Parts: sequence; structure tokens; C-alpha cells
Amino acid sequence: MRHTRFDKMDCSIAQSLDQIGDWWSLLIVREVMLGKRRFSEFESALGISRNILTERLKRLVAVDVLRKQDVGKHGPHWEYALTEKGRDLFAVVTALRQWGDRWVYGDGDAPVVVKDRAKGRPIAEMRVTDEDGQALGLADVFIDPPLRD
Amino acid sequence: MRHTRFDKMDCSIAQSLDQIGDWWSLLIVREVMLGKRRFSEFESALGISRNILTERLKRLVAVDVLRKQDVGKHGPHWEYALTEKGRDLFAVVTALRQWGDRWVYGDGDAPVVVKDRAKGRPIAEMRVTDEDGQALGLADVFIDPPLRD
Repeated sequence: MRHTRFDKMDCSIAQSLDQIGDWWSLLIVREVMLGKRRFSEFESALGISRNILTERLKRLVAVDVLRKQDVGKHGPHWEYALTEKGRDLFAVVTALRQWGDRWVYGDGDAPVVVKDRAKGRPIAEMRVTDEDGQALGLADVFIDPPLRD
Repeated sequence: MRHTRFDKMDCSIAQSLDQIGDWWSLLIVREVMLGKRRFSEFESALGISRNILTERLKRLVAVDVLRKQDVGKHGPHWEYALTEKGRDLFAVVTALRQWGDRWVYGDGDAPVVVKDRAKGRPIAEMRVTDEDGQALGLADVFIDPPLRD
């Protein structure tokens, strides 16, 4: 039912949510971003049922967020990897993580800190900005074309 | 069931997903960001059932993403507004919108463009960056502390 509805909404947010499918899908993407590649790794990391995991992986492959590849040398051995489209969810996952760090855990209590390899420092807080890098709040933007109602 | 599971995951992404609740909740937040305030406005904009809408609004108020206020002069008249925590979802919603613009609709075919009021230009693409504003990819970051398995 959810897919049917969201399919029809002409909105990038709704369409993105439709493609990612549900929370489990985004957490699977998180696991792949963290280096996990196998069904059994996702299963143990997420504590997800095999049925749900199978279905979500199938959908993530179908919408080209993950690709499934046989890396077995002695018989089939499947691994999942992010496509370019899947890797591009990095900003979404990071914005969500930072929001949780701020509002669920609170400053300094985040379970993990994401740092850049080059300098070993925490990455910057993600902000909506204009083309010159100036931070923008909700009141600073508008939608073009405007909504009909 | 979903809430029970995610409650126990010590991860800001999982906790954020748990608080926002589901896709409908994030689309309700989008509507409030676009200026909608009333139950009937959400109902007609989203084509959502009254039962689901009631339940999601209640949850968004409970986790302090929305607040409900009586603005009636002649009897009660309820409106919903974003709290500071809710307004701070702007980066999450924007990152998701831009991903959908790029990967679902494709360049130039996005249903709407978000522009800054001051200059009338499209806002910048959101990127994960280091503290100096240098763009970072997945390979440029690490998690501290590292995952256990």
C-alpha cells in the first residue's frame, strides 16, 4: 500500500523514501557503508529476520542502490556492494546520523564519531547552504514552482 | 515490533529512524516545512488516512519534533508547528530531496527546485565535508571507536 501511494507523489522526498523502501533498507545501506558485504553479516549486525533481509536486499538491488556479485572461487559466494547511486546516500545517512547525535543522544554522547582519515578530526556538521556556502534556514528558502494549494 | 528493535540499537541512524517513525512522518514534516499547519491540510496534501495521520502526528509531538498549539479565538483550533528539533530535520529532508532529484528524476527533471530567497539561486548540493569544507567520500572517513566485528 505504501509503495502504491508514494509512487504517485511527484516529490523527490517521497520518491526517495519509496526507493529506499523502509528503515531496514537504510540500515542495510549503513552496514555496507561500514564495510559489511554478506547476508550473514547483515543478519547478525541488524538482528533482522532472514525473510525481511532477503526481501529488502532484493529491493535495494532492483532500484540499483546495491549490486550483488558472485565473488566465489569454489562455487557461488554472494556479496553486496554499493552502486554509485547507493554511495551517494552518504549525505542522507550522515545528515540523519548527525541529527540523532544532536537530538537523541546529545552533544558528546554520540555512540560513534565519524572522522576524516586525512586529519583525524570529526567531519563537519552538514548544513543547507547557498552556492557560496552560507548556511540557510527554512525561512531563507522557497520552492520553485510554488505549491498549488 | 520495529520500534522495539530499533530502540535497542546504539546507533544515531537507527535512533533517528525510530523517532521519526516512518516515511509518513517525514512527509508530514516536509508539509510543515512548506507551511502547512492543520490536520486537514496534511490530510489533503498527503492523501493519508485519518487514522494513520492522527497516530503519526501524536508520535511527532511525543518525540518533540512537532508541537501542537491552540490558535482558536472562538473555540479550540489546533495547529502544528516545528520545534527546534523538528526544524533541524531540514538538512535530512534536503539531503533526501537532492538524492531523489539526482537519482529518481535525474538532472533538470526535479519537480521543484529549492532556492535561496536572498539571491534566487538554487541552493548548493549537500556534501559531507571535513572541517575546512573539503568534500569527503566514504573512503575518506572512519568510525571512532571502530565497530566490534
